[in-house]
Amino acid sequence: MNYRLIAFVLGEISLLMGALMCIPLFMALGYSESHTLAAYGIAIAVCVAIGGLGLALRPPKDKRDLRPSSGFAICGLIWIVISLVGALPYCISGYIPNYVDALFETVSGFTTTGASILTNVEIMPKSLLFWRALTQWLGGMGVLVFAIALLPGSDKMSTALAKAEIPGPQFGKLVSKLRFTSRILYAIYIVLTLLLVIILCCCKMPVFDSFCHAFSTASTGGFSVKNASIAAYNSVSIEVVLTIFMMIFAVNFNIYFMILIGQFLKAIRSEELICMFIIFFVAVAAVTIDLSVRHTYDNVGDALRYSSFNIASVMSTTGFGTADFTGWSTLSQVILLAVMMIGGSAGSTSGGMKVSRLMIISKSSMINLKKTLSPRSVYSLKMDKKPVDESTISSVQSFFILYILLIALSTILVSIENPTFSGNIFESNFSAVISCFNNIGPGIGAVGPSGNFAGYSEFSKIVLSLDMLLGRLEILPIMLMLSPRSWKRI
Amino acid sequence: MNYRLIAFVLGEISLLMGALMCIPLFMALGYSESHTLAAYGIAIAVCVAIGGLGLALRPPKDKRDLRPSSGFAICGLIWIVISLVGALPYCISGYIPNYVDALFETVSGFTTTGASILTNVEIMPKSLLFWRALTQWLGGMGVLVFAIALLPGSDKMSTALAKAEIPGPQFGKLVSKLRFTSRILYAIYIVLTLLLVIILCCCKMPVFDSFCHAFSTASTGGFSVKNASIAAYNSVSIEVVLTIFMMIFAVNFNIYFMILIGQFLKAIRSEELICMFIIFFVAVAAVTIDLSVRHTYDNVGDALRYSSFNIASVMSTTGFGTADFTGWSTLSQVILLAVMMIGGSAGSTSGGMKVSRLMIISKSSMINLKKTLSPRSVYSLKMDKKPVDESTISSVQSFFILYILLIALSTILVSIENPTFSGNIFESNFSAVISCFNNIGPGIGAVGPSGNFAGYSEFSKIVLSLDMLLGRLEILPIMLMLSPRSWKRI
Repeated sequence: MNYRLIAFVLGEISLLMGALMCIPLFMALGYSESHTLAAYGIAIAVCVAIGGLGLALRPPKDKRDLRPSSGFAICGLIWIVISLVGALPYCISGYIPNYVDALFETVSGFTTTGASILTNVEIMPKSLLFWRALTQWLGGMGVLVFAIALLPGSDKMSTALAKAEIPGPQFGKLVSKLRFTSRILYAIYIVLTLLLVIILCCCKMPVFDSFCHAFSTASTGGFSVKNASIAAYNSVSIEVVLTIFMMIFAVNFNIYFMILIGQFLKAIRSEELICMFIIFFVAVAAVTIDLSVRHTYDNVGDALRYSSFNIASVMSTTGFGTADFTGWSTLSQVILLAVMMIGGSAGSTSGGMKVSRLMIISKSSMINLKKTLSPRSVYSLKMDKKPVDESTISSVQSFFILYILLIALSTILVSIENPTFSGNIFESNFSAVISCFNNIGPGIGAVGPSGNFAGYSEFSKIVLSLDMLLGRLEILPIMLMLSPRSWKRI
Repeated sequence: MNYRLIAFVLGEISLLMGALMCIPLFMALGYSESHTLAAYGIAIAVCVAIGGLGLALRPPKDKRDLRPSSGFAICGLIWIVISLVGALPYCISGYIPNYVDALFETVSGFTTTGASILTNVEIMPKSLLFWRALTQWLGGMGVLVFAIALLPGSDKMSTALAKAEIPGPQFGKLVSKLRFTSRILYAIYIVLTLLLVIILCCCKMPVFDSFCHAFSTASTGGFSVKNASIAAYNSVSIEVVLTIFMMIFAVNFNIYFMILIGQFLKAIRSEELICMFIIFFVAVAAVTIDLSVRHTYDNVGDALRYSSFNIASVMSTTGFGTADFTGWSTLSQVILLAVMMIGGSAGSTSGGMKVSRLMIISKSSMINLKKTLSPRSVYSLKMDKKPVDESTISSVQSFFILYILLIALSTILVSIENPTFSGNIFESNFSAVISCFNNIGPGIGAVGPSGNFAGYSEFSKIVLSLDMLLGRLEILPIMLMLSPRSWKRI
């Protein structure tokens, strides 16, 4: 096992984290939030210490290569480490005194879940709220992808790490060098984020709020700087803008790259893209009709306003709230739960199972039905008119199976200790697990848009944090990180 | 499409149903329930009419062969037809005046679900209760398997039908001729059922009740002749006997055949058998500890008594109740839901996903994880030390995926119309679908052991009836029955 390589990679990432923490430090200076300065200072010192140790252990140049399989385990470890150090500012500043709570909040940020244990975010200092929003923005496109874009390193090792971090059943480089791919992805990400900041400012959202909400939207995270989330602004224009942008960030970034290089027609013919928007519009139509028929809102316009925003919010796994859908009919809630589990597209910042995985498993099951009818015929599974190879199909099927089994297991584990809230605990626990695993944020019941996760025991919070990591990194990195076998091979 | 062959097979089965309805007819005469005689008479007349028509259309001898794939679609159709005629006695006698309700009750019987829309079973005439219990007993081992054991027919066609009806990922003949296999299976089934009748009588259960409950237990159905189900007897000995027998009937019947031919050691080393009992004992231990720690019952003995009976009841998918587990802690309820979904062994009368399927999908996912670590190594999935072929693995994976997708879709459909009961509707709907799909009977919440399915709309009842059929016939027959393609091929 190449301890020095692991230490070196962890060191690099730690230094990067320390550098990023300078942003809230300077903001604290600017907003004269001097009581938080020490927290950032200590946190940065810890990062620098880990970083210095890691760099001191730097392995010789010829020993810096990783097998793709080892990349998964190291990626899992890096995410744990950045969460551990990322939680320090909350904890040391005393705004989230319990370290497990701070860790939950940080994991929730990096994994772009947006589930919170805070009951009142409006009393938090601005620099800390900005750090909270920034963790999401970094986690959305990927902390390692960010590191690859910035730092020098072997392309083979970078591929191993990026494969583990970029969501979706298939990993494709846009251009031949991975470092350039990462830079292109981040460039698109930055441009779209800034565009959203400008539009939100035009919709009369304060500049600080615009930045934080743009970070939340771009990463499909969902943290807000208001207790009432987006409902606090009660502005139709802000809601429409966010609905559109949440769906934009749920689209595979390869599509934007294809549009940039002029392949517009090919881009919009992507099967996954079409399927995602069909699911979105069907769900919006169904929920709008349901809310209208049951007179949940005064008129059809309001029903459409709330249904489109909230479905975009849960399907893109952002988790912003404008309506407490816990009060909606069972049908609407079940539809919300279903789109929560599906999530957005592969290669986007959204979470969930991903539309392309749903398509692959549905298609493969249909092919198996056909095979029962005519066992000797040969069928092949196609996406975008190209055959999908057997190993992708079987890994997508395994992903789905592990996904369901881990959700079942987590629901059992979260149910061991009773939460402090009452009401229907089964529903809350089940939706909390789904929400964390799919990196959404709010669930149904006590963890709905108007509730939060503060009522859970520390043990449950740790289980849910692990679920968030399992969901964000799509199971494999965390599972392989926990297997001693994979460490032996590095 | 060979219409005459389909008509002929349906005719044979109808006559068989008519013959079986003579049993409650004679019972009605014996118990002087003369007001029900007309109902049985009309129902038998309908069966004879369909039967006569079918036999009249009998195809020439050389056209009586079926491809295995066609067997699935025909099997699905037969189950629909027997349910349609089996519902007649309830409806005509006026005890369940609404035909959709009567159909729900009959499908629930044949599929050995045991979910009921009756709020008071004790006012039903004995002959009708016996018919209700008998539908379960026939459905448990299989109506077509019963027909194959009795009626002459080509072995090829019988294999096609039996493959569709016997649950489990793999279908194996015990002896070379399928008719003898069916006879052996039914012989074991009859002997075990009679043994249970005798033991129940010894435990001071009335003879009529013993027969009905033995039928319910053997088929893992769960209909009772008492409103309070088994709790009505408040007898520890009856509960212990039923706990043991429910688990006996959740075991693959091949095991009993192997024991009969002297392969005792090989039989008890079956991986699925061992795994099923491990799950059972772990679940019982966990729930007993949970109930004891939370002081749900006065002492550990009671906790053990209720947990072992109810876990055996839901895991074997019988659905007898002795305790309203809706009042148990969330943890215990989640464990119950998990064992409900797993179910018993393949080749038993129990429902659910089946332990062997869970083992195959878990093993295949583990192998896929290992493949990520060392892509060039070759792994093979083994059960009972024999490799499982690729087509079985992929059909088990497809089964699991369809299973989850259909449960999600059904939950949405059942949520469209509000039930008449209140409380937590999501939990009730979700558990009603799981309960029907896995052929258990009671769910959680309003459809728990002390509730029933009467509150659902007719549309929801039809969806739940389809779920029961999908679950009992393990998806394929119903899916293929609904595909026009499969009819073209017959």
